[in-house]
Amino acid sequence: MKRLLVANRGEIAVRIIRAARDLGIETVAVASEADLDAAHARLADTVVPIGPAPATKSYLLPAGIVAAAREAGADAVHPGYGFLSERADFAAAVADAGLTFVGPDASVIEQMGDKVRARQVAMAAGVPTVPGTVDGVSDVSAAVAAAAEVGYPVMLKAAAGGGGRGIRVVNDEAELRSAFPTASGEAASAFGDGRMYLERFIRSARHVEVQVLGDGTDAIHVFERECSLQRRRQKVIEEAPAPGVDADIRAAMTAAAVRLCREVGYRSAGTCEFLVDDDTGEFFFIEMNTRIQVEHPVTELITGIDLVARQLRIASGEPLNIGQSDVTKRGHAVEFRICAEDPDRGFMPGPGRIGHVELPGGPWVRTDTWLRPGGAVSPFYDSLIAKVVVWGEDRPTALRRARRALGEFTVEGVPTTTTLLTEIIDQPWFASGEFNTGTLEDWLAERAKPSGTGAVA
Amino acid sequence: MKRLLVANRGEIAVRIIRAARDLGIETVAVASEADLDAAHARLADTVVPIGPAPATKSYLLPAGIVAAAREAGADAVHPGYGFLSERADFAAAVADAGLTFVGPDASVIEQMGDKVRARQVAMAAGVPTVPGTVDGVSDVSAAVAAAAEVGYPVMLKAAAGGGGRGIRVVNDEAELRSAFPTASGEAASAFGDGRMYLERFIRSARHVEVQVLGDGTDAIHVFERECSLQRRRQKVIEEAPAPGVDADIRAAMTAAAVRLCREVGYRSAGTCEFLVDDDTGEFFFIEMNTRIQVEHPVTELITGIDLVARQLRIASGEPLNIGQSDVTKRGHAVEFRICAEDPDRGFMPGPGRIGHVELPGGPWVRTDTWLRPGGAVSPFYDSLIAKVVVWGEDRPTALRRARRALGEFTVEGVPTTTTLLTEIIDQPWFASGEFNTGTLEDWLAERAKPSGTGAVA
Repeated sequence: MKRLLVANRGEIAVRIIRAARDLGIETVAVASEADLDAAHARLADTVVPIGPAPATKSYLLPAGIVAAAREAGADAVHPGYGFLSERADFAAAVADAGLTFVGPDASVIEQMGDKVRARQVAMAAGVPTVPGTVDGVSDVSAAVAAAAEVGYPVMLKAAAGGGGRGIRVVNDEAELRSAFPTASGEAASAFGDGRMYLERFIRSARHVEVQVLGDGTDAIHVFERECSLQRRRQKVIEEAPAPGVDADIRAAMTAAAVRLCREVGYRSAGTCEFLVDDDTGEFFFIEMNTRIQVEHPVTELITGIDLVARQLRIASGEPLNIGQSDVTKRGHAVEFRICAEDPDRGFMPGPGRIGHVELPGGPWVRTDTWLRPGGAVSPFYDSLIAKVVVWGEDRPTALRRARRALGEFTVEGVPTTTTLLTEIIDQPWFASGEFNTGTLEDWLAERAKPSGTGAVA
Repeated sequence: MKRLLVANRGEIAVRIIRAARDLGIETVAVASEADLDAAHARLADTVVPIGPAPATKSYLLPAGIVAAAREAGADAVHPGYGFLSERADFAAAVADAGLTFVGPDASVIEQMGDKVRARQVAMAAGVPTVPGTVDGVSDVSAAVAAAAEVGYPVMLKAAAGGGGRGIRVVNDEAELRSAFPTASGEAASAFGDGRMYLERFIRSARHVEVQVLGDGTDAIHVFERECSLQRRRQKVIEEAPAPGVDADIRAAMTAAAVRLCREVGYRSAGTCEFLVDDDTGEFFFIEMNTRIQVEHPVTELITGIDLVARQLRIASGEPLNIGQSDVTKRGHAVEFRICAEDPDRGFMPGPGRIGHVELPGGPWVRTDTWLRPGGAVSPFYDSLIAKVVVWGEDRPTALRRARRALGEFTVEGVPTTTTLLTEIIDQPWFASGEFNTGTLEDWLAERAKPSGTGAVA
């Protein structure tokens, strides 16, 4: 690999350009009209304009990106995350043009992108998935038998339904017997099909994911990340190792992820996402992301493994070169996503011209960003402006450092979520590590309430 | 420790403030009139003005610093490096004022500050020192006997002389027999004393130092640093681990440093400096620095141990809490000192107002600096404006990353050594790790020569 086109923008494009440069590989940026002066365009060796600002007219056009790669003489393309990163047709187009796609084969992207096929692959690899019926059941006794297998609480869904429509949760057989006829009747009248699916209902769970690296032959894990703190399914704070995941679960989950990778002959960096049931400690595969993740730096900081460089080296045809026993961890890392949004106005995005900028720095603070004075937060793209990632010898040290680092962060011209993130650090549930996928939204809802009526000021 | 006064300025004051904040300790900065708006003054919780710009009228006045600490309600004082950091009288004044001095006891500073006493302590602890005669010898046969013990090549110095005056190097007994009478005669006529000291002459050596941590009872090492690349005895690039130091030497040298610390009941972070003879591989103790070193970050990056935080915790009365086996290393780290000097004009310092600043960042790049747009490089102080410290899984990776990081560094308004540092990275002797304390100055002298006369352009 001599010359890499980075098919992305923002902090991940900057990150990939740096990784390439660290390996002595030349870099080509692509930029929409809004991004011609953006950090990634300024940092790369060459920049190719690819069209108007809306991503649908530039960053999301496979043909345009491939043409840019050819024009600039690139021999490889890194898709980053988002945009075209999980589009099998893009990976195929890159390969068809005789270029190296930095990621798994198009067929693997396709397989993992299809939830039903991904679940089948997981089951074939002996990776636990959320228990549920395979086919719909149409009478109470079949439902009772299936529920006994699945385990209570059980979620009842219309086999023909979509979205959240007609979903009921039942806690035991009595509730099931009482709810089934009504639910099935409703489904029959709504969809003309009374069959129901049963799936284990997980009241409260953590979102934990396992980082993997594969070269098509061998595969290893690079430990797990805790990503439960989410708002509208967007991760807000991530960390590694995952607090509240004990050694047994960690060992079983990471082994499962490696089995899954071997099953598909996975090549590149990838992530297997799991739900960990708070009540039982069981874990279940949800999906695999066949690309680099936003939160990859926390894994890098505890292991010393450069995941983006590994992607580039694997794509160049290098074998993994490291075995599982070479992957060790030290200390604790936490990533805070800073967005140009106003948390006190419903997280409304605040595009604008950037004035003065001060970035956190010093020991064990890594700031991945595209911010620079005079730059602009565009209304066309994601509002992520920086990731502040801290490392400490243990979690409390990392969290104290995070408070310091977030305090050093200054950006004028746009609202940010920095203060909110600092507030989260001070919450007892965060300090103790006792939270799940619902905690952040519950807390945000509570926080948004007017602070008591008739209270004495 | 609740409130720490940082008796320093520049990047080390910023570093110490960050470490204190990471531990939840409040910070007090002191600032000369030139520094009232400097980064360390802006970052601290409180600032106390301590006088005019020349350090002799502010940063170098023990009484003024102690008064500032009292005024600000500080309960501890960190001296940083340089300035008052190795002044036993300052450590004593801090202690006498009922405040905690972040460093070893005044008596240990005094003992190690006296070269003769430090050498005696080293010998008592079984730490090798440069072989030499203890008393002067006045005749050839005594000189020959002494030289046989010391080992050739031998340096002959007038016992009563000073500086480099009358020093001769002899390579064997014949040369000694021939040189001694003349040298002794010259000494007799110059100083009225013909006695000579003999000391092993080390043709070519590396400067390697061992980082230590002690709590007064226990002591450990935190591996070694290579610091041979010097100009006028100022280190320019430092790294850890030291290339060219094999496992046996490393083990013996680090063990020697720990013995020395135990001998004096050392408390705090400290550094034992050694010369490693390029010809024989023997190592010899030169001196101990009883303070934090400029180059401490390379040790932090390979071990994950926060040396400044450790100083603060030890000063607070905490025991070490880590044993030698807890100290492990990973990868390779290199520090580049960036100075506001013009290498092409004899390293002339270039004070001035700072314009636009872009600092290197991203994965495994740590920039310790006080630079900010609108700040100023003062003619009153040291010209160090930033330390760019990189980590990589191995030395070649770290060096490639260093090239990238130095390329990202931009500061307008003052000259810098950045380009020269990048040039050094590309030298074969640097890439191979084959250099000694003379290499950099030899190369700089060669580089300064006009590039050939009559050459065809």
